[in-house]
Amino acid sequence: MDDAMETGNLAPYQERPRIFPNMRSKPSTPLIFRILMRMNVRLLFVLLFLGFGAIFYIGASTSPTIVFVFSICIISFVISMYLTNWVLGKDEGPPEMVQISDAIRDGAEGFFKTQYGSISKMALLLAMMIFGIYMFRSTTPQQESSGLGRLTSASITVFSFLLGAVCSGMAGYVGMWVSVRANVRVSSAARRSAREALQVAVRAGGFSALVVVGMAVIGVAILYATFYFCLGVDSPGSMKVTDLPLLLVGYGFGASFVALFAQLGGGIYTKAADVGADLVGKVEQGIPEDDPRNPAVIADLVGDNVGDCAARGADLFESIAAEIISAMILGGTMAQRCKIEDPSGFILFPLVIHSFDLIISSVGIFSIRGTRDPGVIGVMEDPMMILQKGYSVTIILAVVTFGLSTRWMLYTEQAPSAWLNFALCGLVGIMTAYIFVWITQYYTDYKHEPVRKLALSSTTGHGTNIIAGISLGLESTALPVLVISVSIVLAFWLGQTSGLVDEAENPTGGLFGTAVATMGMLSTAAYVLTMDMFGPIADNAGGIVEMSQQPESVREITDVLDAAGNTTKATTKGFAIGSAALASFLLFSAYMDEVASFAHTPFTQVDIAIPEVFVGGLLGSMLIFLFSAWACAAVGRTAQEVVNEVRRQFIERPGIMDFKDKPDYGRCVAIVASASLREMIKPGALAIISPVFVGVLFRILGYYTGHPLLGAKVVAAMLMFATVSGILMALFLNTSGGAWDNAKKYIETGALGGKGSDSHKAAITGDTVGDPFKDTAGPSLHVLIKMLATITLVMAPVFL
Amino acid sequence: MDDAMETGNLAPYQERPRIFPNMRSKPSTPLIFRILMRMNVRLLFVLLFLGFGAIFYIGASTSPTIVFVFSICIISFVISMYLTNWVLGKDEGPPEMVQISDAIRDGAEGFFKTQYGSISKMALLLAMMIFGIYMFRSTTPQQESSGLGRLTSASITVFSFLLGAVCSGMAGYVGMWVSVRANVRVSSAARRSAREALQVAVRAGGFSALVVVGMAVIGVAILYATFYFCLGVDSPGSMKVTDLPLLLVGYGFGASFVALFAQLGGGIYTKAADVGADLVGKVEQGIPEDDPRNPAVIADLVGDNVGDCAARGADLFESIAAEIISAMILGGTMAQRCKIEDPSGFILFPLVIHSFDLIISSVGIFSIRGTRDPGVIGVMEDPMMILQKGYSVTIILAVVTFGLSTRWMLYTEQAPSAWLNFALCGLVGIMTAYIFVWITQYYTDYKHEPVRKLALSSTTGHGTNIIAGISLGLESTALPVLVISVSIVLAFWLGQTSGLVDEAENPTGGLFGTAVATMGMLSTAAYVLTMDMFGPIADNAGGIVEMSQQPESVREITDVLDAAGNTTKATTKGFAIGSAALASFLLFSAYMDEVASFAHTPFTQVDIAIPEVFVGGLLGSMLIFLFSAWACAAVGRTAQEVVNEVRRQFIERPGIMDFKDKPDYGRCVAIVASASLREMIKPGALAIISPVFVGVLFRILGYYTGHPLLGAKVVAAMLMFATVSGILMALFLNTSGGAWDNAKKYIETGALGGKGSDSHKAAITGDTVGDPFKDTAGPSLHVLIKMLATITLVMAPVFL
Repeated sequence: MDDAMETGNLAPYQERPRIFPNMRSKPSTPLIFRILMRMNVRLLFVLLFLGFGAIFYIGASTSPTIVFVFSICIISFVISMYLTNWVLGKDEGPPEMVQISDAIRDGAEGFFKTQYGSISKMALLLAMMIFGIYMFRSTTPQQESSGLGRLTSASITVFSFLLGAVCSGMAGYVGMWVSVRANVRVSSAARRSAREALQVAVRAGGFSALVVVGMAVIGVAILYATFYFCLGVDSPGSMKVTDLPLLLVGYGFGASFVALFAQLGGGIYTKAADVGADLVGKVEQGIPEDDPRNPAVIADLVGDNVGDCAARGADLFESIAAEIISAMILGGTMAQRCKIEDPSGFILFPLVIHSFDLIISSVGIFSIRGTRDPGVIGVMEDPMMILQKGYSVTIILAVVTFGLSTRWMLYTEQAPSAWLNFALCGLVGIMTAYIFVWITQYYTDYKHEPVRKLALSSTTGHGTNIIAGISLGLESTALPVLVISVSIVLAFWLGQTSGLVDEAENPTGGLFGTAVATMGMLSTAAYVLTMDMFGPIADNAGGIVEMSQQPESVREITDVLDAAGNTTKATTKGFAIGSAALASFLLFSAYMDEVASFAHTPFTQVDIAIPEVFVGGLLGSMLIFLFSAWACAAVGRTAQEVVNEVRRQFIERPGIMDFKDKPDYGRCVAIVASASLREMIKPGALAIISPVFVGVLFRILGYYTGHPLLGAKVVAAMLMFATVSGILMALFLNTSGGAWDNAKKYIETGALGGKGSDSHKAAITGDTVGDPFKDTAGPSLHVLIKMLATITLVMAPVFL
Repeated sequence: MDDAMETGNLAPYQERPRIFPNMRSKPSTPLIFRILMRMNVRLLFVLLFLGFGAIFYIGASTSPTIVFVFSICIISFVISMYLTNWVLGKDEGPPEMVQISDAIRDGAEGFFKTQYGSISKMALLLAMMIFGIYMFRSTTPQQESSGLGRLTSASITVFSFLLGAVCSGMAGYVGMWVSVRANVRVSSAARRSAREALQVAVRAGGFSALVVVGMAVIGVAILYATFYFCLGVDSPGSMKVTDLPLLLVGYGFGASFVALFAQLGGGIYTKAADVGADLVGKVEQGIPEDDPRNPAVIADLVGDNVGDCAARGADLFESIAAEIISAMILGGTMAQRCKIEDPSGFILFPLVIHSFDLIISSVGIFSIRGTRDPGVIGVMEDPMMILQKGYSVTIILAVVTFGLSTRWMLYTEQAPSAWLNFALCGLVGIMTAYIFVWITQYYTDYKHEPVRKLALSSTTGHGTNIIAGISLGLESTALPVLVISVSIVLAFWLGQTSGLVDEAENPTGGLFGTAVATMGMLSTAAYVLTMDMFGPIADNAGGIVEMSQQPESVREITDVLDAAGNTTKATTKGFAIGSAALASFLLFSAYMDEVASFAHTPFTQVDIAIPEVFVGGLLGSMLIFLFSAWACAAVGRTAQEVVNEVRRQFIERPGIMDFKDKPDYGRCVAIVASASLREMIKPGALAIISPVFVGVLFRILGYYTGHPLLGAKVVAAMLMFATVSGILMALFLNTSGGAWDNAKKYIETGALGGKGSDSHKAAITGDTVGDPFKDTAGPSLHVLIKMLATITLVMAPVFL
């Protein structure tokens, strides 16, 4: 049987389709890897050893906790190397699969290189601007007392920004690097058994998840330790440790800056190719998805890697970095207010939580065991069940380790039972994450009522399908908002009643309680990211199977994996948006503290009854609508270009449909690549420029109308309204997109007329509309929300 | 030619289609009209004379301004009676037109009766609840000092509420009453000349516009004068005149309560019928719009009347009432703070502005002159140009009368130049309205870029058309928000610098400046409403022409009128949402004052940095998403029922397509009528219950966590976030809907393949999606925003 597969009737595609000769000729390995590869292995080891030694020395002189964090991160990198070796050790299957996989890899790496080239230029420009601003800003009393000059403070911020940007880029690269290698191995494994294919995809996803989370944690830890060490923190006359976390904000901003453009560019790429391929291939020509006759199919498969893998890696990296930093800031502020003797526990708590995350998620990943029945194809378990089982293992471990960590880090004599309250906050967060996943599944899985009704609405035409999908998406915002609301109020209340009080005996633990809940929510981040990465890898594997014309039984396996991947992708988005909501709320508090310390005056209120502040809110919400508009329009426009190109190829080369002529995949790849690079600039620039512009404008207005701090207040309102609207809009876009996709899949199982019926056509329309919703605008909004929070924090000096 | 038309080849439809025997058998005239009709004419005159005498007596003892307002309103009622007589004096055309028109009238009046039956039951229930709440609430110091007991205050609120509800219902009835009579007369006039048809439609629209605006003004004036008279205001020991406007809030709430259900029920009715008719008729069977073979066509035409005419009448009535009352409250508060000797000028100013509105709009309506070339069909001017010319006349007059009114009413010795600043505020409002109209036209008229691009995106399929439409709609929110932001800040600044200061020399005129800008925006309301009413009348006339199979030339005329109507409908929505934004901001300030006076403590800030308040904001925005979801879903569900019914009729009666069998119009009417009554309850109840529920919940929470006024603060945040999200969502829904409609119309002019092409099919999909957006969810959101503001104001006592 294997034999039959390897010589399958692929006559016109037997010769290797060297579609991208130009791209292949250039090595697409990044510069840093090339330098590393040219070096002597022994020298490399010595350097690595010295580097780690230095890091550990600095860590040891900061806090034992830092050493613990370093060790765990390094262990997790070792585990991830084991996972890569395991995945890369799998066979790549027959040559036709390798051909396709090579084409995908070249396309993805070529686009990644160009895209990150543009992004790094923009990041450098922004870094110079930040440096300039910090050189001319006023300093805070804390900085003055610790002798932190303007130059030092500017250099620290810019250095953190650039480090965050580089790490975020690396997180994206790692995600893509493994996925373009794992896809073909999953296809190949699918020829043997479903279970093995699942395992390859999960372990590949697990590799990048561990690297992404580990890098976020170790990056913050290294920065923290270095600053602690270099600035002589806590020694007399210098900075207090509770003020240190504020210096890390640049790292979060750098991460979210890169993530935003990565998500925008990648999202536009993947969905423009997908929509274009579907509209002509599936709707007009009636050929299946990923059919090799479709000229846009390679672009579509490349898109899964640059859009879903690279961008989601950067997105989650940035979520974790933002959450860690904001929680550290709040922990520091609270410890200072409560005059806790050793505040480092409260500050370093998030790092510990995410170190445990790395361990428990590894357990979860390894709990998905190898093949039981190696020979039997067809008898397969529901992959979703297997993934869920792993998730349950991870969640149970998370509850245990969270409890232990709170007792270890947050026990203080001043309030002996405070740690218990915070452990409960963590539990609130873990449960919120779990309920979020459940709600997303309810609205996007075709086992449940909503998607079934959506599928039913396709029977009465394209129009009713779209109306039903939009109302489903709008409605699906309600439950997550209720859950988030309850958890904010509950965690705040648990924090307030923790017994931690300031000098005036006022309870002060509320905000930190919310921060701990956010950590609880993200305490299984690495496993969730694994499930998410699994999706595009399975999708790609399915594409390779389809393109290399494997037998039906192999396709069935990848189809089932793909369907599970769709659900996990949707749930990760629910998870990402929930944590973004909480993280933004925390960063908002940090922003208010920052403004207060710059302005040398209390700044605790943002009063929306003031007309200018209300206007700021209006502008913030409008920003979300405009950003979503531009992101969707970019996909629509690029998809139209693809449609016209594909139509042209079908007309000019009529042999394509009979497998007699080879489509020009390269042109479609080139079209989407250049279009997405062009189209990502406008929404990205909007997101960065508008808060700064509004802040400066109202600062000037406030100056002339005698209204102090007006700029800062208006920006605060803008941020809050943008956060709220952004959460709702992202939930709407993600859920409706996922539901449309699965309604189509439901009909493809044979329900309501099945493939090729009018209902199916209407469902495909819904799916194409949902594509830019769920994979371009929606996930970009997650990043946008956090980027707004970090940009206002970094730019705070210019608003006063 | 007339002869040919009257005996046109309508063989199977010659016998009168008595489709609604049951409905016809019951007289559908409301009870009050029946009583009036049975009375002796002389007695009626005597009663009327006595009534007016009493009103004038009360008015005269209140303020000469009130007498002026009464007189103008009565003059405008006389003008509107002249307009009705003029319209009703036109001929109804050949019997086949009359048949169709009768069927439409019966359907519309039948639905109106049932719908308002349900609404009045709900209103009575709510009135009892309000009475109960007011009987148990605490009283304000002002009320105590004026001896206003609980019973009096409860009775006043309930009485105002019921009066507002009744007047709102009457406004809706009047709108529908004239449109079901004018439609056939416009069709008939279209056989003679385009200009005459235009004039009939405009005058019919003008009649209801004058009645609606006049009723809003006279209702508030009568209430004001009655309360002034009965409570002995301004005499020693009783209420101050500056506190009087707060008693009128119930009127606004009653108006918005009825308007919300009228808009929801009517909107679901009209669009479910429209979508259902289009999906089977146009898309599946390829027959033209309003073809008599389509079983849903009568339901569609009935929908135009109950949805567009009745509901928009109630909507604008409620806008004006809410705006007058909120401006009166703010005028009173400001006058009191500035210790102005005669505050009545500031309080009664809005009534004067709207009295002038009645006069200048009448001039505008009459400026659209009669037929120039009675015989020539085909040579026609652009009706949009003619309507615009009338609008320009009205706007110029508005600027003049606004200036005069400010000098007359707002001149005070304390700040001699304040009136000039306020006149400028009015100018800001008028210009805002004008720019809003211009922006809406830019985004929805196919003369401009956006709709052309949308049409172009239809050539690449249904999917790209929907994506482009949604991004167009999302993008179109940006400019109106910028304009609204500038006008809020500018009007506030003009008000602040007016020279009006309180005892501590703080400038206090800012909010009143915003209020004056709102009045400026609404100062041409009656003309705008006329243009709006023109739309559905023209649409209906086109339907009657199509159904009665008139020659092509007649259809061309009604098509052009219909296209103009589409644009005017879209612009009115822009106008309505702009004024809703401003009015809500004013009502929000009134709410804060009200809470402060109940709580005996200052309440000037709503601080979104408090977690519970932030949660209130989240819930407020979510309310908008959920409400829109339910409104759209209701249309989608009902449309599916219609589609299935129409398909069933086409299958069971194959003779329909060859004009051999008569479709059962009645069943479609019955389906949409019962479905829309059922479906309007859920979103309506959500809008009313959720703010009250959230307020009470957080009041209890605040009580247990020792946080005073928490309920009131959370509701305030909910209101503000809901307003902002509601404005954006309504702009998005209205504009995308209008743009889809006109993109389809653009293709129907022959562009990009013309009628029947694949682009046209894709454009029809867009149009059907846009239908519930622009005519159900969008306009319901206008009303929702204001209803939220009035309900929180009336329910304020239960939040503390």
